[in-house]
Amino acid sequence: MQRVKITIEYNGAPFSGWQRQPDRMTVQKALEDAASKLDGEPVVVRGAGRTDAGVHATGQVADMDLLTDRPIRKIADAMNFYLRPNPVAVLKAEAVADNFSARFHAKSRSYRYLICNRRADLALQRGLVWRVPMKLDAGIMHEAAQAVMGEHDFSTFRDLNCQATSPVRSIDAIDVARYGDMIELTVTARSFLHRQVRSITGSLVEIARGQRPVEWMAEILAGRDRKLCGPVAPGEGLYLERIEY
Amino acid sequence: MQRVKITIEYNGAPFSGWQRQPDRMTVQKALEDAASKLDGEPVVVRGAGRTDAGVHATGQVADMDLLTDRPIRKIADAMNFYLRPNPVAVLKAEAVADNFSARFHAKSRSYRYLICNRRADLALQRGLVWRVPMKLDAGIMHEAAQAVMGEHDFSTFRDLNCQATSPVRSIDAIDVARYGDMIELTVTARSFLHRQVRSITGSLVEIARGQRPVEWMAEILAGRDRKLCGPVAPGEGLYLERIEY
Repeated sequence: MQRVKITIEYNGAPFSGWQRQPDRMTVQKALEDAASKLDGEPVVVRGAGRTDAGVHATGQVADMDLLTDRPIRKIADAMNFYLRPNPVAVLKAEAVADNFSARFHAKSRSYRYLICNRRADLALQRGLVWRVPMKLDAGIMHEAAQAVMGEHDFSTFRDLNCQATSPVRSIDAIDVARYGDMIELTVTARSFLHRQVRSITGSLVEIARGQRPVEWMAEILAGRDRKLCGPVAPGEGLYLERIEY
Repeated sequence: MQRVKITIEYNGAPFSGWQRQPDRMTVQKALEDAASKLDGEPVVVRGAGRTDAGVHATGQVADMDLLTDRPIRKIADAMNFYLRPNPVAVLKAEAVADNFSARFHAKSRSYRYLICNRRADLALQRGLVWRVPMKLDAGIMHEAAQAVMGEHDFSTFRDLNCQATSPVRSIDAIDVARYGDMIELTVTARSFLHRQVRSITGSLVEIARGQRPVEWMAEILAGRDRKLCGPVAPGEGLYLERIEY
């Protein structure tokens, strides 16, 4: 038996999220099917975090136990062979200690949210970014975002179905920058609540388009009430980008 | 009658190239169908350059004559409405003089070629970049590329079906740079021969992967023989990026 840590890229569009579900195609199921074909036995793939339907990843991490001994340097290629034609790719496979847990040993998680701020429809990046036609001020968006830095009760910014026992989380970094038509939000924390990044992003867009003042972010955070949150940003602009151990 | 200049983005994947052809879906046909619905009369859309099947654009330019007078600021939105669900979007529409020609008045054209240099399959950028699994040296690729700068007979780097009367073209700039896994080649000239950018890119990749020495580029250029060219790079990595007037 060897425990393997894999780093994974996927396009969330065709999947009903990360987590295995009966009768649904999910990223976890695609990976488990591929690993099981590789190993000849059923394999469980444990992700560092669950992503919602439509959400992408450029650096999801998971661990799995393989029964058959094979050179670690051949595992990524073999997984990618069995993953085809699913839009899921193993970027890296590493041998790790038997007690390694992708989920519990993660020190920080980073997400990126991509907004294409233009009127014209998307021809090239359809399903890969959120298009917002109204003019957004990325500078004000960055300023407003700083209100969520540090430890807070994030009840306003978590989904009603969130399973976490505590609504308290600590955001280590959040930045918004514009590159031409594209606005990128990056955010890092040890862990996140369900739909926290999309809830924060959606609320910031309300400020960036001038519907709310910059102080509104601190106000609704302090209110600790889900009803105060702005419209939740769609999954298609969100990327699980990196997990640090 | 008003002549309109449009700047266009498209995903080349589902199209048989730019140019109108019987019984084929092309970018020109998608635009002409949309413009004809908008105008109520058949409209001809004249592009600045033809792109091959699978080739994308972020800044193609075309001109067209509309019979019905309408505010120029409403034309892009209206075109985009009629273009749906084709992956073609009008980014900008401008009123121009009656003698403006997108093709003949172009001062320079810029293309970008995107290579994803990694072993793992593409999950997010499938059809949008060329994946090359063998390790490429972008520095050597940039150095080798400088051999084609300036005016040359590009017979080695043009398709046998190229319709141009002269094989002489002048390249004003060509640069190769790496950003993580991504290698970007950008090239600017007044005009290009058929498959010139893909022929140059494919030959440079032979050098970048160590199959040929850096001097090989100058050698095959001087040979002025199509048979000397390396494997032509696929259309999916190529973008018509900008046209200057």
